[in-house]
Amino acid sequence: MAEIPTAAISRLVTYLRILEQLETQDVSRTSSTDLAERAGVTAFQVRKDLAYFGRFGTRGMGYTVPILKRELVRVLGLNQTWNVVIVGVGRLGQAIANYPGASDYQFQYVGLFDVSPELVGRRVRDLTVQHISDLRDFVRDHRVDMGFLAVPPDRAQDAAQALVNAGVRGILNFAPVVIGPRPPEGRTAEGHSHNAAHALQESGDDWRGVIVENVDFLAGMKRLAFYILNPHLKDSPVPEDTA
Amino acid sequence: MAEIPTAAISRLVTYLRILEQLETQDVSRTSSTDLAERAGVTAFQVRKDLAYFGRFGTRGMGYTVPILKRELVRVLGLNQTWNVVIVGVGRLGQAIANYPGASDYQFQYVGLFDVSPELVGRRVRDLTVQHISDLRDFVRDHRVDMGFLAVPPDRAQDAAQALVNAGVRGILNFAPVVIGPRPPEGRTAEGHSHNAAHALQESGDDWRGVIVENVDFLAGMKRLAFYILNPHLKDSPVPEDTA
Repeated sequence: MAEIPTAAISRLVTYLRILEQLETQDVSRTSSTDLAERAGVTAFQVRKDLAYFGRFGTRGMGYTVPILKRELVRVLGLNQTWNVVIVGVGRLGQAIANYPGASDYQFQYVGLFDVSPELVGRRVRDLTVQHISDLRDFVRDHRVDMGFLAVPPDRAQDAAQALVNAGVRGILNFAPVVIGPRPPEGRTAEGHSHNAAHALQESGDDWRGVIVENVDFLAGMKRLAFYILNPHLKDSPVPEDTA
Repeated sequence: MAEIPTAAISRLVTYLRILEQLETQDVSRTSSTDLAERAGVTAFQVRKDLAYFGRFGTRGMGYTVPILKRELVRVLGLNQTWNVVIVGVGRLGQAIANYPGASDYQFQYVGLFDVSPELVGRRVRDLTVQHISDLRDFVRDHRVDMGFLAVPPDRAQDAAQALVNAGVRGILNFAPVVIGPRPPEGRTAEGHSHNAAHALQESGDDWRGVIVENVDFLAGMKRLAFYILNPHLKDSPVPEDTA
């Protein structure tokens, strides 16, 4: 597949969301112009994003909503089951576990993990919260496709490492910190010592092939602050009137 | 200011986060290579992103952590107070209101709003939850810079419109739906009728200049699913070993 910018994947998710909303409104056909207007991008951008994955429309005819929706579901891998564990079952983790729509598209919460004695053993939804020390055995005995990280910022790196050590290859990080393989303490910004580089290499090996996506509302707050101060740098959410 | 891609702003937020982490580790100097490695981008990307806003480093000398941090804080508008109302004080809204670090950078929660009789009147943090019908008066009487939308998906558009009608110009939308000015019912995908276009125009007018940023964990789940299936399309979180 060609080099595809991450932003294009985010836009595909938005197009899918718009198609779902159109379907609930019994709109059966759409166009790159219509999708662009609703997504706040250009029609050219819509066509370019979709073209990475095939030809979904008929020139001049636009798109059939259920067909394009089905194709985007397939492209995004949402036509298969994804087993998810949540690490961190405080307010945020419970909000995620209980959020309506989170179980759409066969995302299934199969395990909840925390360290807090008040939480371990408690029932959340249909699951009993387990201690993080049981994560490795759980992942060995169950299929786990993703781990959601909903711990406090200062616990995120350790919890992420626990997921990686347990063999979870996909992490959705809700903590407003950068997680990943860590150089050892004492490493300077100028570069690694030989030992540091070696240690990073070892640490990096665990993380090789691990996919991390971030859902960071503090970052969202900061982006919003920037665009409120620099509105000319942002597409207005108001679609151009194409009538 | 030059055209600046949205992704660059997201990366600035990441660089700031890394600088904060370096500061807690008493690292006083960094480099585009070091920032790039920690952020999972190229050093060229770091230099390009920073260059939009000025020259922060000395060639060959890298960056002074506290100075670059201070400059990014200024660029992102985080050196001023932002008054925030939260609309939707269920699990998610309460998780946001109570999340550690959310009150960093002078983001101040000044009002909480909901429609639920069980929530209105309840104390959350140091605030009493008010009914959404009081939002307009509240915004008239207080400075409100941003509204956080933490309502269920099916309530997001109405709640967003309430924020816009009340005069809030910045919205951080946590609901996994596309919010914005809405064409009236019955509009077809082929385009607007004259009346529809007119109504969209009117609706659009309220939204003109409104900045919407999304923090969408369902979208994060979908991006993660895509990249787990297509890891070759994603930069590995493992930094290259530059030693």
